Amino acid sequence: MYNSIICRYHEIATKGNNRNMFERRLVENIQYLLRDVAPCRVRRVRGRVWVEHRDGIEFTSAELDAIRPQLAKAFGLESFSPAVRIAPPDQEEIRKAAVRTAADVIAPKLNGRDQLTFRVRARRSNKKYPLRSTEIEIDLVTRIAALFPPGSLKIDLDHAEITLGCEVRDEFAALFWERFDAPGGLPVGSNPRVLTLLSGGIDSPVAAYLAMKRGCPTDFITFHSAPYTPPETVDKVRGIAKLLNSFQQPGKLYCCNLAPLQKLIRDNCQERFRTVLYRRAMMRIAEQVARKNNCRALVTGEAVGQVASQTLVNLDTINHAVDILILRPLVGADKHDAIAIAEKIGSYPLSCVQVPDSCTVFAPSSPSTATPRALAEAEECRIPEYPAQIEKIIEDIVTYA
Amino acid sequence: MYNSIICRYHEIATKGNNRNMFERRLVENIQYLLRDVAPCRVRRVRGRVWVEHRDGIEFTSAELDAIRPQLAKAFGLESFSPAVRIAPPDQEEIRKAAVRTAADVIAPKLNGRDQLTFRVRARRSNKKYPLRSTEIEIDLVTRIAALFPPGSLKIDLDHAEITLGCEVRDEFAALFWERFDAPGGLPVGSNPRVLTLLSGGIDSPVAAYLAMKRGCPTDFITFHSAPYTPPETVDKVRGIAKLLNSFQQPGKLYCCNLAPLQKLIRDNCQERFRTVLYRRAMMRIAEQVARKNNCRALVTGEAVGQVASQTLVNLDTINHAVDILILRPLVGADKHDAIAIAEKIGSYPLSCVQVPDSCTVFAPSSPSTATPRALAEAEECRIPEYPAQIEKIIEDIVTYA
Repeated sequence: MYNSIICRYHEIATKGNNRNMFERRLVENIQYLLRDVAPCRVRRVRGRVWVEHRDGIEFTSAELDAIRPQLAKAFGLESFSPAVRIAPPDQEEIRKAAVRTAADVIAPKLNGRDQLTFRVRARRSNKKYPLRSTEIEIDLVTRIAALFPPGSLKIDLDHAEITLGCEVRDEFAALFWERFDAPGGLPVGSNPRVLTLLSGGIDSPVAAYLAMKRGCPTDFITFHSAPYTPPETVDKVRGIAKLLNSFQQPGKLYCCNLAPLQKLIRDNCQERFRTVLYRRAMMRIAEQVARKNNCRALVTGEAVGQVASQTLVNLDTINHAVDILILRPLVGADKHDAIAIAEKIGSYPLSCVQVPDSCTVFAPSSPSTATPRALAEAEECRIPEYPAQIEKIIEDIVTYA
Repeated sequence: MYNSIICRYHEIATKGNNRNMFERRLVENIQYLLRDVAPCRVRRVRGRVWVEHRDGIEFTSAELDAIRPQLAKAFGLESFSPAVRIAPPDQEEIRKAAVRTAADVIAPKLNGRDQLTFRVRARRSNKKYPLRSTEIEIDLVTRIAALFPPGSLKIDLDHAEITLGCEVRDEFAALFWERFDAPGGLPVGSNPRVLTLLSGGIDSPVAAYLAMKRGCPTDFITFHSAPYTPPETVDKVRGIAKLLNSFQQPGKLYCCNLAPLQKLIRDNCQERFRTVLYRRAMMRIAEQVARKNNCRALVTGEAVGQVASQTLVNLDTINHAVDILILRPLVGADKHDAIAIAEKIGSYPLSCVQVPDSCTVFAPSSPSTATPRALAEAEECRIPEYPAQIEKIIEDIVTYA
């Protein structure tokens, strides 16, 4: 019954000179997300993006079922609604479409109940249209109410259970009954590419998601410690990266074996500094990979004070190992904030699979919660082959495209 | 009717060796927040903090009204409930207290209604107590139901409108009817002090709040441009700092007049780089103030891609002006996420007062969205008096304690 989908975004996100770029990117991203689910045409019309069937026909309900979860991944979109598009706008046609769709939408909800609350909300940007918004609303309410037993639809302008939306534009009008949430943020690709340090934990996939949501496409880098970690360590992260890649044109996953350096750290440095020294090594490797691949920042899932390596002193010491911008979208978040987002995006069950991770290899029993920069540097100086080993690890990276 | 308040926190936040420190800090913070509202005794008992009247008597309802908003500011707490404390635990006394309080709580809600859903939830850590949890629940449900007309209280274990909680501990039992939300996070002071760059905008107060929520007490630094900005610019930020200080033992506010440096930038550098050059100057000043005052990181309200100065390239260039850790809790947030928190903490109406701010003085009509580091450095080299001017601005800082 729907031949169109209205896609809404905050104009505030697209203000100023960049508006055109944001909107073009949003359209491209929607085209990409819908590429395999239905033959669509996607275009911008004044503050909205419209998705239509390429052949001008109605979407099947199977197509709509496939489109919905994809649009829910379109960063930059706030909400969307399957709609009946009527071109040119004509009140008789609008009325017919409202009546035709009303039965399908309202009857199942009324089933077994005496009364439903209902409203029509019209919005008219076509100032030449003969009816004003309120007149459109009254016209449609009257026609629809007449379809059902008297008293079964009660008008409630504030908290209606069912809302019929009507937009009247210059070229066409649209009617819609449902509104689905989209993720908000900025279209991915409207900011430069970043590189996310992806572990098997809960936080780093959420951090990657939030970076994408702010418009940054992301590649991924992960660290394992074969043979001290099993192949499942990498498999798990590949699964998480695959999920995250469903929100963007797929980024690469760089897999590094940190074990050779971890052994050197184990054999040469004080035990309690190991975790911070591992993190510094990961940052250094990630920085080089980022620079080679045109990523403008690193992204991590770190939060202040969550674990021993994430005290302010340790974060500073980890930072200081590199000279690239580090984004920590969760730095001010509680664990349950991260879990809530992980559940929403679907990474939570993947992260909960128990697999050994690189950070736990030779992990100290009592890690230092405050490793000053100078101390970390002094520890690293005990490993003469440190720089060469970093280069070697980078050479041995396995990339999944 | 209540002589006690149960304060709950996530044990997960207090795991490991630091648990003691976290709990002690939480108790101290609650004592501090309640210092002027009622004579309280605050103590820890196994996974809970209990607030009692210092004289062992009941709180007046005026005292409870004053306590509630203060506990809602205690970072680290998840929720709290005014409670009747019964020592030692004794089922006859528990029963009496339940019956005594039930009328006060249930009667007003039942007023004019036929039926309310209701349940009792008991929790027994005192394993020597003669009744088990379920037996306590059945005992209390029976007694309370008998107080009201038959059928007016309907038991619903899942979605009751009214829940009576009962905890039986070794030394005492507690009964409670309500549960209020607290902010979560970590007790402020459980992580080191930071310095927040506070503007008159919406984002920076939220960033300060999130840093406190992660346990970091914060001082504040703000920039005005007198005489190009009016005294109201500083008044506004003082008001915001005062609000934020209600969540912690007050931090200082450092007020800097950036105008002398802004004039030099205006007169010597390319117009479109001004905003980034201002931000670099602010960071440098803030870094020195932070180091002098034992703040371990700077906190800003920056978000990726929100305004021209917050592109990844510009953030990197701003970062590179200093060598101190910068926390950006909103880096992955949408504007409306920040607004939602600002509304919750009460800073939103203060931020919405329109007053000129330092960043808008001599603001470029078309600011650069990508100012590479080298370019910013080259621009700054055109101002030979730059370092001296920074020192002078720091000397002239006005501090509000």
